[in-house]
Amino acid sequence: MTQANIDAHQQQDIIATANAAADVAREITLSYFRGTSLNTESKLEAGFDPVTVADRGAEQAMRAVIAKMRPDDAIHGEEFGPTKGTSGLTWVLDPIDGTRGFISGTPTWGVLIACRDETRVHVGVIDQPYIGERFFGGFGIAELTGPHGDRPLAARRGVALSDAIIFTTFPEVGTPQDRKGFEAVASKCKLTRYGMDCYAYALLAAGQIDLVIEAGLQPYDVLGPIGVIEAAGGVVTDWQGNSAQKGGRIIAAGSKALLDEALALLGDH
Amino acid sequence: MTQANIDAHQQQDIIATANAAADVAREITLSYFRGTSLNTESKLEAGFDPVTVADRGAEQAMRAVIAKMRPDDAIHGEEFGPTKGTSGLTWVLDPIDGTRGFISGTPTWGVLIACRDETRVHVGVIDQPYIGERFFGGFGIAELTGPHGDRPLAARRGVALSDAIIFTTFPEVGTPQDRKGFEAVASKCKLTRYGMDCYAYALLAAGQIDLVIEAGLQPYDVLGPIGVIEAAGGVVTDWQGNSAQKGGRIIAAGSKALLDEALALLGDH
Repeated sequence: MTQANIDAHQQQDIIATANAAADVAREITLSYFRGTSLNTESKLEAGFDPVTVADRGAEQAMRAVIAKMRPDDAIHGEEFGPTKGTSGLTWVLDPIDGTRGFISGTPTWGVLIACRDETRVHVGVIDQPYIGERFFGGFGIAELTGPHGDRPLAARRGVALSDAIIFTTFPEVGTPQDRKGFEAVASKCKLTRYGMDCYAYALLAAGQIDLVIEAGLQPYDVLGPIGVIEAAGGVVTDWQGNSAQKGGRIIAAGSKALLDEALALLGDH
Repeated sequence: MTQANIDAHQQQDIIATANAAADVAREITLSYFRGTSLNTESKLEAGFDPVTVADRGAEQAMRAVIAKMRPDDAIHGEEFGPTKGTSGLTWVLDPIDGTRGFISGTPTWGVLIACRDETRVHVGVIDQPYIGERFFGGFGIAELTGPHGDRPLAARRGVALSDAIIFTTFPEVGTPQDRKGFEAVASKCKLTRYGMDCYAYALLAAGQIDLVIEAGLQPYDVLGPIGVIEAAGGVVTDWQGNSAQKGGRIIAAGSKALLDEALALLGDH
């Protein structure tokens, strides 16, 4: 099966499952973040650091939720690999995207959840447990739920490259060649910022920034953001303008026009 | 008068004033952040961007609070300069530290408040309105008040440079020479991260990270962080190990031992 059959009832079920998975991951990751709970003191086994324990614990909890609510779906998580299904739908999980941010205490890491079939990402979630923000995209919904209420997500359109705000997590980006590609675009932008992990994709979906360029990503790093950003009207591709679903070198843009401006500069790299 | 006379009653009064000022600044800055309110649409005068309006509005509101609650104290704000006082105490205000973070929607900017005399910083506040976190230091108190409750702030001690997490906001740091100094230290650390604006100082006070090195700072950029970090047991100096109160090239460290390791590397720059 390449395309799953998803009726309105199924859609509600998938949305509820995505939120339930994000809820359990939020609770577990947060209990290890900044050493704020007894977990950090009492539950760390020899050889595990808090982020590893949180990562594995959150993925196990999400898998249990999905297995119960959607027993026919496949699951592919960063920590425990693939589990087969029969529905044609696969849940792709990254319990803590941005582990370096996590261990530094910055509220820029996130729980990433995607539900896809072989044709596309149907639902994406970027959840930031410490702030309490959930960026959700899919089935016609693009919404931020957070400490200041709910608001629709909409990528910013009509911004020229010279007025764009661009993000990547590390100045090195990836290989020296990756870095040159990023800098070819960033040098034409109004403002370059670093350090946001997956939160940069959330800001793009929220219409706050215009471009994110990264390299060396895994599918589980990018599928959740793809779901959120596409639902908000933005675009995500690889550096050749093809599907970004396999990870690697990724560019996200608020609009197709801005994407094309940036791709022209990335083309030489 | 070089040192103000501050009894227990005065201390309570100063703490209450700092919190009241932070409260009004939080409300005003937040109303312009991410274009979340009608303010952004309806109140922007020609020639002002949202961050400028928020910056000025928040400083005016803080000045009004301080003038009412502490009429004898001097005030020095980023936007409106100095107002004289007679008490020997000066309030130093930066209504939005991290304006680039603010316009990008990242929750890394902050409201900085300090209360100092000519000898030292007595109270410092780093407030992050969107997350709802207030990092407070002074008069024996070092505390984070936030969405997950209150907790004491304590800088992390006993971390060697090779195990340290270091932050600066931009990879460029400042001049090419400033950047070399930063890199001389960062290259010896375990992890380097960027993009946090004043939030990096808050993370240091919270014991999450170990070093912050920046250059080109103004006094109002650093006095609030000094108050918070010193109260949490950390240290802040210039690159020669002298007082950081005038800004410029700044280093903050979780401990004196770590500071000394880093200063030895900065000495050549």
